Amino acid sequence: MNLSIVLSLQPTQFSALALQGNPEDHFHKLKTLGYNGVELAIRDPSLINWNHLEEELNFSGLVVPAIGTGQAYVEEGLRFSSPSAEIRKKAIHRLKSHLPLAKRLQAGVIIGLLRGKVEKNEDFGKGYAWMIDSLRACCEAAEKEGIKLWVEPLNRYETNLINTIEEGIVLLDQICSKNLGLLPDTFHMNIEEPVIEESLRKANPYYKHIHFADSNRWPPGFGHIDFKSILHLLNEIGYSGFISIECLPRPDPDEAARGAIDYLKKVAIP
Amino acid sequence: MNLSIVLSLQPTQFSALALQGNPEDHFHKLKTLGYNGVELAIRDPSLINWNHLEEELNFSGLVVPAIGTGQAYVEEGLRFSSPSAEIRKKAIHRLKSHLPLAKRLQAGVIIGLLRGKVEKNEDFGKGYAWMIDSLRACCEAAEKEGIKLWVEPLNRYETNLINTIEEGIVLLDQICSKNLGLLPDTFHMNIEEPVIEESLRKANPYYKHIHFADSNRWPPGFGHIDFKSILHLLNEIGYSGFISIECLPRPDPDEAARGAIDYLKKVAIP
Repeated sequence: MNLSIVLSLQPTQFSALALQGNPEDHFHKLKTLGYNGVELAIRDPSLINWNHLEEELNFSGLVVPAIGTGQAYVEEGLRFSSPSAEIRKKAIHRLKSHLPLAKRLQAGVIIGLLRGKVEKNEDFGKGYAWMIDSLRACCEAAEKEGIKLWVEPLNRYETNLINTIEEGIVLLDQICSKNLGLLPDTFHMNIEEPVIEESLRKANPYYKHIHFADSNRWPPGFGHIDFKSILHLLNEIGYSGFISIECLPRPDPDEAARGAIDYLKKVAIP
Repeated sequence: MNLSIVLSLQPTQFSALALQGNPEDHFHKLKTLGYNGVELAIRDPSLINWNHLEEELNFSGLVVPAIGTGQAYVEEGLRFSSPSAEIRKKAIHRLKSHLPLAKRLQAGVIIGLLRGKVEKNEDFGKGYAWMIDSLRACCEAAEKEGIKLWVEPLNRYETNLINTIEEGIVLLDQICSKNLGLLPDTFHMNIEEPVIEESLRKANPYYKHIHFADSNRWPPGFGHIDFKSILHLLNEIGYSGFISIECLPRPDPDEAARGAIDYLKKVAIP
């Protein structure tokens, strides 16, 4: 089982992050707990010391399967679906600025909140079309660099653009880039998917990374999602990507990291 | 099984309502489907023709177990937790204006969205205290009229004031009114409660009315909530109140009303 957990390298208002801080504060601890990867949440890669990050990764032996980008929306309001051409341009530019780091780390890049949502006073069709245009521009750049981009369906309260796996598959058809895939997240799926396992099976060709959080967004084991059944399904379909813990820092950050891996090892197929 | 479904008597932006319209358009149909109650969502009772409503109820044989009040928040911004004394006063006044109708119909009155939420720029402690003060004023009036008020825990995206059954029980302790109870809702519980059945058991002394919607807020049977297990629990604890369908109008309003009752009769203990 390839297991990672999300670490935000910069302070953020986004709450569903078990860990925040510097590489040297977390990497060794995560490796000791049994993680072999760390997913990095990065608002702006130009503010990160890439060499230091890479040194710490090499020192710890952790890999980075994915980079999360949503903080540029949460903190700066950048979004692919904005009616403002200026904001869309900045959002695309920001996404593209992750690609060189992703290439260096051999990581995928996540498109979650960065697509934004269509606000009440805006036209949904136009917002959707702007998101598509922005995604196409990003895919073109990602193809050149050989980087995978993954659109994460989010629940209805966080966006009105791609809530379900089914909507995600339609989107992939519309964009038609071999570098674009999906990123299922069990917390969002618990709200949006009638049967989580069925949707994970349907999405099988389209994801190489998955987020695990329990029904209450605490670490797996603290809610009622049937992770044993989900792990069984992933095993059955031959899933070989990372399972990445994206959850609230509950009961506290260290307990979240420890609790998640302990629980998943307990319910995993031996 | 006492079964009701929510009907909004006035147009609203709130989406989780299977039915909207006039009593004469719905009551007979609901009775024919097998419902014995109708929960009314009312923004402002002064705009309702009470005599007509009562005639239609008598004609159909339906009872009204509960009146929902949240539209005054959604449509008019009234809330118990507002920093504005004027808005709090209006919210309390609006809640009190439901009591005479509730008395006539022998219905409970629901406090869902009407408590509002503490906004980002507001102080949480103050907002919580204002909610408490407002609830106390409403409870005092409800006690005089002999009406039950039920606080509905809502998921984290809809409010930051009372998300869980546990927080609801703390609130009841703080208010200490024999007329105040809770109203569990399975859609919200699927997000907030680690184990829905356990929380329903803990809340047992405090609720006489419960909302059913599936995990995706569609009618029961369209998502993954285990209603068979919940009905078993309700049976075991001797629950005798109404089960009230508060869900999205999916696949369409009529199908929601029909689908919910068909499904619940199928999974109910014979």
